[in-house]
Order: sequence, then C-alpha cells, then structure tokens
Amino acid sequence: MKIGLLTSGGDCPGLNAVIRGAVLNGIISHDDEFVGFRNGWRGVVEADFEEIVRHDVRGLSKQGGTILGSSRTNPFEGEGGGPENIQRMLDDNGIDAIIAIGGEGTLTAARRLVDEGGINVVGVPKTIDNDLAATDYSFGFDTAVQIATEAIDRLRTTADSHGRCMVVEVMGRHVGWIALHSGMAGGAHAILIPEQPKTIDEICEWVESVVDRGRAPLVVVAEGFTLEGMSEAHSHKGLDAFGRPRLGGIGELLAPMIEERTGIESRETVLGHIQRGGAPSAFDRVLATRLGMAAVSAVHDQAWGQMVSLRGTDIEVVSLQEATGALNHVPASRYDEAKILFG
Amino acid sequence: MKIGLLTSGGDCPGLNAVIRGAVLNGIISHDDEFVGFRNGWRGVVEADFEEIVRHDVRGLSKQGGTILGSSRTNPFEGEGGGPENIQRMLDDNGIDAIIAIGGEGTLTAARRLVDEGGINVVGVPKTIDNDLAATDYSFGFDTAVQIATEAIDRLRTTADSHGRCMVVEVMGRHVGWIALHSGMAGGAHAILIPEQPKTIDEICEWVESVVDRGRAPLVVVAEGFTLEGMSEAHSHKGLDAFGRPRLGGIGELLAPMIEERTGIESRETVLGHIQRGGAPSAFDRVLATRLGMAAVSAVHDQAWGQMVSLRGTDIEVVSLQEATGALNHVPASRYDEAKILFG
Amino acid sequence: MKIGLLTSGGDCPGLNAVIRGAVLNGIISHDDEFVGFRNGWRGVVEADFEEIVRHDVRGLSKQGGTILGSSRTNPFEGEGGGPENIQRMLDDNGIDAIIAIGGEGTLTAARRLVDEGGINVVGVPKTIDNDLAATDYSFGFDTAVQIATEAIDRLRTTADSHGRCMVVEVMGRHVGWIALHSGMAGGAHAILIPEQPKTIDEICEWVESVVDRGRAPLVVVAEGFTLEGMSEAHSHKGLDAFGRPRLGGIGELLAPMIEERTGIESRETVLGHIQRGGAPSAFDRVLATRLGMAAVSAVHDQAWGQMVSLRGTDIEVVSLQEATGALNHVPASRYDEAKILFG
Amino acid sequence: MKIGLLTSGGDCPGLNAVIRGAVLNGIISHDDEFVGFRNGWRGVVEADFEEIVRHDVRGLSKQGGTILGSSRTNPFEGEGGGPENIQRMLDDNGIDAIIAIGGEGTLTAARRLVDEGGINVVGVPKTIDNDLAATDYSFGFDTAVQIATEAIDRLRTTADSHGRCMVVEVMGRHVGWIALHSGMAGGAHAILIPEQPKTIDEICEWVESVVDRGRAPLVVVAEGFTLEGMSEAHSHKGLDAFGRPRLGGIGELLAPMIEERTGIESRETVLGHIQRGGAPSAFDRVLATRLGMAAVSAVHDQAWGQMVSLRGTDIEVVSLQEATGALNHVPASRYDEAKILFG
Repeated sequence: MKIGLLTSGGDCPGLNAVIRGAVLNGIISHDDEFVGFRNGWRGVVEADFEEIVRHDVRGLSKQGGTILGSSRTNPFEGEGGGPENIQRMLDDNGIDAIIAIGGEGTLTAARRLVDEGGINVVGVPKTIDNDLAATDYSFGFDTAVQIATEAIDRLRTTADSHGRCMVVEVMGRHVGWIALHSGMAGGAHAILIPEQPKTIDEICEWVESVVDRGRAPLVVVAEGFTLEGMSEAHSHKGLDAFGRPRLGGIGELLAPMIEERTGIESRETVLGHIQRGGAPSAFDRVLATRLGMAAVSAVHDQAWGQMVSLRGTDIEVVSLQEATGALNHVPASRYDEAKILFG
Repeated sequence: MKIGLLTSGGDCPGLNAVIRGAVLNGIISHDDEFVGFRNGWRGVVEADFEEIVRHDVRGLSKQGGTILGSSRTNPFEGEGGGPENIQRMLDDNGIDAIIAIGGEGTLTAARRLVDEGGINVVGVPKTIDNDLAATDYSFGFDTAVQIATEAIDRLRTTADSHGRCMVVEVMGRHVGWIALHSGMAGGAHAILIPEQPKTIDEICEWVESVVDRGRAPLVVVAEGFTLEGMSEAHSHKGLDAFGRPRLGGIGELLAPMIEERTGIESRETVLGHIQRGGAPSAFDRVLATRLGMAAVSAVHDQAWGQMVSLRGTDIEVVSLQEATGALNHVPASRYDEAKILFG
Repeated sequence: MKIGLLTSGGDCPGLNAVIRGAVLNGIISHDDEFVGFRNGWRGVVEADFEEIVRHDVRGLSKQGGTILGSSRTNPFEGEGGGPENIQRMLDDNGIDAIIAIGGEGTLTAARRLVDEGGINVVGVPKTIDNDLAATDYSFGFDTAVQIATEAIDRLRTTADSHGRCMVVEVMGRHVGWIALHSGMAGGAHAILIPEQPKTIDEICEWVESVVDRGRAPLVVVAEGFTLEGMSEAHSHKGLDAFGRPRLGGIGELLAPMIEERTGIESRETVLGHIQRGGAPSAFDRVLATRLGMAAVSAVHDQAWGQMVSLRGTDIEVVSLQEATGALNHVPASRYDEAKILFG
Repeated sequence: MKIGLLTSGGDCPGLNAVIRGAVLNGIISHDDEFVGFRNGWRGVVEADFEEIVRHDVRGLSKQGGTILGSSRTNPFEGEGGGPENIQRMLDDNGIDAIIAIGGEGTLTAARRLVDEGGINVVGVPKTIDNDLAATDYSFGFDTAVQIATEAIDRLRTTADSHGRCMVVEVMGRHVGWIALHSGMAGGAHAILIPEQPKTIDEICEWVESVVDRGRAPLVVVAEGFTLEGMSEAHSHKGLDAFGRPRLGGIGELLAPMIEERTGIESRETVLGHIQRGGAPSAFDRVLATRLGMAAVSAVHDQAWGQMVSLRGTDIEVVSLQEATGALNHVPASRYDEAKILFG
C-alpha cells in the first residue's frame, strides 16, 4: 500500500519516532510505500508531499521536532479541503490511506473525514498534556514531565538558599497531568491544576505552613489553573508595551499575589516551550515507535476511523469517537493522593 | 501504628522515594510512627533499627540509593532469624508491621514469614530488571532504560565515525526488558535477550546486513543472553590474573567473536553499575512515591502477604504468591515487534 | 586558625563546592577550625554562625545552592555593622579570618573592611554572569551556559517544526558572556548582549535573512541588552495586573516587536532562575573546589584584601582592588568572532 | 582559497563543531571553498573527498562524531602517500591547504609534511585525554570529564547503599587529567594516574581509612595507571576465551586485588567508549567552534606548520614542533592539591 503520513499541531517529542516506526514496519513487514504531507493537513489540501524512503528515517527515534513540519490548518477549509477534494487528491496520487498524528483537533477532523467522506484514515494520538481519554499515556508527556522535574530540582536550591517561594508554571491547558507528575517527582509543596480551582487564601495557607516547617515553598502550577473567586479585573495580566492585554501566564500572576499577602519573597519561572522540544525520553521513544508501527498494522487491518493507544503495556486500537469524546482529566483521587504529600 | 521499613537486595533508583512516600502518607494520613531497619533483613534479625521522622525524608524523592542500607541477608537464618524470633522482636519494640521493599528473594521470604509465622508484612516490588510478573513496571526500570539509551546514543557516534560494530551489554539476568526498551529507543541493529537464544551465525548475519546498508552496527545484549549451540569450552570467559575463571560478561565474549567471523572491527562496552545508581527519572519517582504511599494504606487494610503493584495507571494490591510465582519474561510478540526494526 | 565562611548574593552552582574545598584543605593541611556565618554578611553583623566539621561537607561538591544561606545584607549597616563591631565580634569568638564568597558588592565590602578596619578578609569571586575582570572564569558560569545551551537545543526543534522565530532570554545584566557562549554553542542566528546595542531594524534584518535561507531563526538575548533608539515609552514592559509597571524582560518585548515588523510568528522563552540552581557542571565543581582550597592557603599567607582567581589553568591571588575596579565586558573582538556565525 | 579538512584518530566530541566553525568562517569571511577528505589521511592519500557547502554544516555544533569519518592511516604510507604525491593530488584538485584535526600522531605527520614537503598544513589539536602540551585544554576533554563525573555520581549511591568499594576506570593512557578532574568533581577517595604510580598497599590504606570514617570508598583510576612493584606475572589480565592474553583494563585488576587484601567487597566499572561519543558539552562546542574558525584564519595567514590552541581565554597559534614535543602531564602540584581531598 501507499500510505501518507502527517503531523499536526504543536511540537511534541516523539513525532519523528512515530514516523520512523511506521515507515520501517510498513517497508519491512508489508512492502509499503510512504509519502509525507508537508505541514500537517495543509500538505493534504494542497497536495504537497514527498516520498519517504528507508534512509530518510535513519537515526530519527531520538530527534525532536518533526521532519514533516506542522501547522494548525483544518482539512475542511480552503480550495482543496473537504472529503471530496481530499479523496480525489489521494486517488490522483495513488495514496491508499492517511496516518494522521495529532491531538484532539486533528483526530476530530480525521473522524469526520472517515464518517462524512469515507476517507481511509487511521489516527495516532499526540498530546503532550496527556489530555486524551482513550490512551493511558501519550508520547511526549514523559519527556515534558522529566524536563519540568529537572527544572524544579534546580529551582529548589535557589529557593532554599534564599528562603524564597518559587512558583513554576508548567504546561497543561485543560488538564493537570504534567503539574501533578512533575510536582510529585520534584517534591512540590503545592500543585495547582485546572481540575481543582483554589482560592488565593488556600494557596497562601499552604505556602505559610511550609515556611513554618522551616522550608522554602515550591509551587507548581499548570498554565490552565484558575483562581477561584478571582474577579475579571484581576484575571487579565495587565497591558503590554503596545497597550494590548498581555498574554502572561498564571505563574506571573500568582507570585506577586503570594508575596503581597504573605510577605514571603516570591519569584515565578515559566518553563514554556523548553518542555515540548528536543530529544524524547527513552520511554517516549519506545511508546512512539510502537504507536507508529501499530498504526501501519491498523492500516492493513483497514481500521479506518480508529486510532492506536496504550493500555497497560499493550498497544490497542480504539475508535476515534471514543478517543475524542472526553478529556482525560486528573481524577480527584489522584489529586487527593498527591495532596497528602503537601496539604 | 508503628511500621518498620526495610530495603533489601541491589541498589535501585527510587528506593528512597518509596520510603518518603510511605513515611509522609503514614504520618499525615494515619498518624503512624516509623522505624527503619538497617541493611535489609539483617536489621530485622539483629533488631537494628532507628526512628524515622518527617524531617528525615525531606528531599529524598530524587536521591539515589537507600538511606536504610541494604544486604542480602535471609530472615530465616541466624540467631534472630525465623518467624518466632522476629515476632518477638516486633512485640518487644511495639512494631506492628513491616513494609519489605525488595525483589524476588525478599518477597518470597516475606510471604513465608506471613504464611508460616503470621508476621504482618506488606511487600513493595523492587526489580530494576522488571522481572516480576505481577506489576506492569517496577521503579528503577525506567531510569535504567534511560541511562542505557543515553549511553547507546553516545556509542553510536563512535561506531559511525570509525565504521565499527559496537556491542553494549546492559542489565537483565533472566529477562530482557532493559535490552528490549533501550535497544528500541536507541535504534539498535540487534537486540539479544535471555528469552531468545541465537546462534553466533544469526548475529553475524544481522551485523553484516547492517554494514551492507552502509551503517555501523550497534548490538545491545542483556547480561543473561546465551549463545545457542555454544560449547562449554567457549562459554567461560578465560582466566583472570590469579588463574581463576573470569566473571566477564557476554558482551566481552561477543565482540571478539563477531570481529573474528565477520572481519568487522568490534568493541564492547559493559554499562554495569551506572545503570542502577543515582537520581531516579521522574517516572520512577512518581511510581515509587505512589507505591510507598499505597504500601502504608495496605498496612492499614491489614493486607498481610500482599504487595502493591502498578496496573495501567493504577496502584493495586496483589498477593505475594501471585507476584513471586513466575518471572515477567519478554513475550515473543514483543520481541518480534522489535525485530522488525532490525531483523 | 579559626576561619569564618560566608556566601552572599544570588544562588550560584558551586558555592557548596567552595565551602567543601576550603574546609577539607583547612582541616587536613592546617588543622584549622571553621564556622559558617548564616545568610551572608547578616550572619556577621548578627554574630549568627555555627561550627562546620568535616562530616558537614560530605558529598557537598555536587550539591547546588549554599548550606550557609545567603542575603544581600551590607556589612556596614545595622547595629552590629561596620569594621569596629565586626572586629569585636571576631575577637569575642576567636575567629581569625573571614573568607567571603560573593560578587562585586560583597568583594567591594570586603575590601573596605580590610582597608578601613584591618579586618582579615580573603575573597572568593562569585558571579554567574562572569562579570568580574580579575578572573578568567568564575564558577557557576559554565553550568549556566550548559543549561542555557540545552534549552536552546530543545527550542530549536520547535522553531524548525513550526517555522517560527524563537527568542531566548538568558542571564547577563551588565555583560553578555552567557548569551555569547550559549548562543555560539547552540548555533543561534543572533546574539544580543549589553555591550552591543542594536536597533530593532538590524535584528529584524538578521531574522529575515535566516528565513530567506530556509531556516527558523533563533535569537539569544541577554537580560541586560538594550535596543538602540528605543524611546522610553516603549522600553517599559506595560502594566501588571495591579497597574504597576511590569518587570518583564527584554525577551518579552522583542518577540512581539519582531513578529509585528517581519510578519514571522515569534515566541519568547525566559530561562530565568533555572540557570542558577541545581548541581554544578564538572568544570564548575573542579574550579570551585580549587578556589575554596586556595582561599584557605591565602588566609595562611595572610593575603588580606586579596581574592583567589583563575588564570589559564592556575589559581592565583589578585588584589580585591583590581578585581572590583572594572567589569569583565565581552570584548568587541569576541562579539565580531561570534557574529561571523550568524551575521 | 580551497581548503581541505580531515579528522583523524579516535572519536572526540567537538570534531563536527570544528568543521562547522572552519566552514562558516571560511565561506562568510573569506569566500573560501571547502572539501572534506574521507576517513582522515586515507582520504588524502587516496584523493577521496567531497565538497562541503554551508548547508552541510547546519546544526553540526551539537552533533557527536565526525561527518568526515576517521582512520589511523599514516600519510607517508601507501601508493598515494608521501609529500610529493600529496602535493600533486592537491595541485590536481586545486586544493590550496589542508586543515588537519587530530592528535599527537596526526600533528607530527602534519609537521613532517610541512617540513619535508612544503605542504600547506595547519593543525587543530584533538586529544580527549588532554595530553598535548601546547594548549590549556583540548575540546572533548570537558565532555569526557562531565560524563565520567555523572557516572561517578551514580556509582556513589550504589557504593553507599552496599558499603562497597567502587573502582571506576576512566580514559587517560599517558596522562591523568580525566581521572584528576572527574575524581575531584565526583569527590573520589583515591585518584590513580599514570604520572603517579602507587603500590597496592598505599591504595588499600586509603581505602581502609575511608571505611574507618564510615564511608564507602570510591576509587577513580586512569586506564594508563600502573601499580608500583607489580610483577609482570600479575600485570597481564589473564587469558580470554580463545586463550589469548586479555586486553582488560587496570580497573578489572584493581577491584579483586583490593577485595582480597582488605576484605572489603569491591566492584569495578570501566566507562570506556561512552566517554568519547555523543553531543559535546557547551564548553567544548564553544572551544571547538573557535578553534575551527581560527584554523581558517591561520590558513589565510599562511601559518603552515602551526596549530591553533587555547591559552587562558584566547585562541593563539603555536608551532606544531612545540605542540608535539612534550606530553601535557599532570604536574605534581596538581596531584598533591587533589590528594589533600582524599589522602
């Protein structure tokens, strides 16, 4: 078969390992051919692709980023968009199926292409935040947690040396997994996640109890955390140099609030993009490689509208409907467990 | 309750994180007291222990090794050994239960102490090789795989620069999980594990096909791998400087054999102890912390003769009987999957 | 002799290695005794110190932060401040000399204490920015460069995957050494340092030429860099949530300016405190250990008003006057050299 | 000018950064053209080379190994060898000069080619052991020390957990710099280097004094260290599986000897090739880049028979005669300094 690959959405460690796993499995086990669409769905709607041969995936498992490029283009928009145009493009180029590697948006689009247009698409879940419900873990998440944990390890010595409160903002727009795991691993004194809004008073209480025990408080906050009872006036982050509302994060808001209320010197660090680039951890390389290999098997099983996922130690196939139906929130039990360590 | 902790057997990243998780959960959730037995079961049979307070576990999640020390002492031996003596020692010191953190041997001993003596013991599985059947993963394994993978990444550039075959020996006495995962993550051209004996001819064929593709072969071999059809005369590793048979590993044997048969310059690297020491990965810190916390819950549930384990993303409780009955071998399907990448 | 140690100013990887080097050299070579003043000069003016014995410095070379704590207290202020009070405190406690580990401010204060009060002080230079003129390198600098370089490596894959311009703000208030070295090591396409103001037009020209060559631009900017021809109105960073001028950095200012002028999507990452905490690099451990050892030798040589410094591969002694007289600016020749790589 | 580059001898982190620095400086500053000889001098004597353009050195500063390949071929041997043949090959291909990146052997050959044949050669010193006298440090050394130090950090926890003596063998055939620096950085209890032969009794005394202080001994030994008073019979390492004398290292010899004499359980780890492969440290990337750039300047200065070197923080040019005349031994003063920490 001739299979087209695409990577869509934000950078995520392991994308290239998925591509390598898929291409090697296809070439060696099934004598498949591969093309790579450039820049996600944009390459599909613009028929912009190139052949991928075995040599192209050499040494790729440890390489960050994606050799295919990425974009946030929607396959239903533009001149070449929509199921009919896409099917025609595939036919014209003899491409039998698409493996779409992406997050919620990409997988939802993939499902619609299958449902509405009968396009042969198989999905590979990509979410560094680990917010997809139908997989135990997604590649990239382990790497992000490791990077955040190493940063927390470093920040702790500064906190201790100066008796300061350090606030670390990590990724996690809708779910708090990165904050939960890096906070547990780094021994944080407070973990703040989108699923568990807290008042500034609760947070300050935690911070003060840490100082009372003679330690320097370390607060890990997910970017999507919201303060309970926070008025709109305070929730924006001020104006930037051009008078526009700033896009600053919750970390930049929290540190001065904690300092103002407790009198404890507080500093924030926003880890930002360093969590999503660079070489994947060994865990993510193995997971991504296996998902890529399994996606090719799914293509040969004609599992259209399905995606590959991790369950325990096995790679399974689940419907995209199930996968995109609900977010993988941090359950209250897991938060309560972590809270014992700091609460 | 007053709970005694012990760590037994070889060093493993995450031991201290288990101790911290147990102590914090016990103190905060249950108002427990803790003592630590020194040097594994030896501390039990010699009544050698000290109190552990909250301050003692501060910053411990990232620290390698074990603050309690370790040994390979058997609790059924020696003057203070055996269920009766141990029960008396526990009674004398008001210790209500033991949490035993160790591998196959420790957990088997723990089970016998429960079965034969009614001692209150709960187990925490510790196997860097990941060879216990009743848990998806054990702490320490992820760190070992990460260290081995980083070493493989480094060795690859030397192989490529010199057109050499590099043989890397990793841990794995009875099972090949570390070799399988680090080999997949590092893009090895051959992975050799105890579960899958191969002849030297098969190995040399793989090595030569890699050279034919213009690449420098990288072979990952678990220490417990055996060559099929190898005569006794060749399987020992020569004599050391004192005329005794050497304890050298399979890696030291393979590299010269490959060079002799293929004419391709070959070098071995034995990773050895660097795989088992030092700071645990974030994955292992989270897993170890959760296992430690769950072990204390198991104590309060009076789950004697049980151990805590990872299933998917959940911590569960399983019987020690189940846990120590069978080794967690690499299934043939997982080896075949990996072999597609190099075979 | 009885020697008092203090660490002053911001956290810096290697502080504990200096302490260990000093204490071991003093105890083993000279039978010295040591006390540690708590929280920098504050411990001196408040006579707040504790004994340091050999056991206290065990395993300290790799530990970030400072076991003595730090502050920005000035020894000439407060009730116990000034040369007379300090001399009395030293006499009362039988302390023969002070080893002061700190930056420009600390070393200037040390020099005044020697000059004005005849206090026995020897200095150890501590500047993560590498801004002291009388030493080739200062400990902490190598670690900061390494951390910044690893972050740049990671950010590059995201830049490449998305065709974005990434702006990385690193430390360097008055001098651009961290930006220069991490920018060279990471292959930056523009390096912006305090010593070399540039206009936004020059910067955008560099950025656009990189895009013209088909690459994603990566800009490394020192926190102390200033835009040439920038009006006051634009140089503040907007208002925060409380209506106060924001303390945001140059990175947060540059990224939107580049995007606005070039139309190239741009993102900033402010590395901040992760550059100054945590375990020192091997280079910094060796340097810090040697400086600590040499400081004790300088005490026994009664080299008051002097500090230890690195020249080539040798540790030498230079006067604090020389050391604090001028900043160690990046010479134009070094900037021109680096500019060849991106200009 | 048209410049030919070659890399010779063992793998060393930073080789690719030298190539990148040379090529970028040549192309941008001087409009030079570049060719790369394949596999060291073999490419010269066989006229085997390919053009290197700007695109080829993209992203190369962080990449381990050498894109040019390497060998131990001598340019005076073989059909195309010797000054006359080489000059003819250069003339035939319009190549104006050679930049030879290599160690003692390569630089000596380069000097002879200049002296005896008037070939236009400039050298770049490459010695991971840091054994060349005419440069403060050579690239690759810092990376090797960092890797060895991280390994020592890991081994220490295992030593402490089991109360064992750990012996770590690091690189250093003729000089002990890697052992000295990694041993100081890692807090070793004994450092054994080629420049300072010791008897097994002295070593065992150190080891026992460490145990007496309640710690687990960690011994760092350079591969070129020799035991004083060791009879030939004991200095070989036994026979291998084929009855040939084994090439095992000093580490494998020392550990059983220490255990036998002191009764302290001892284990060795031979770091081997992981010290020389993979991504260079930031320090080495900067140094290698600057050396590569300076080599091109030296070519334009017609500094034939010279090599570039680091002096303090400056890159200078020294004669190959000076550079290859003497080894850069660890001075006794540096060993005595380190010995204070453990002796």
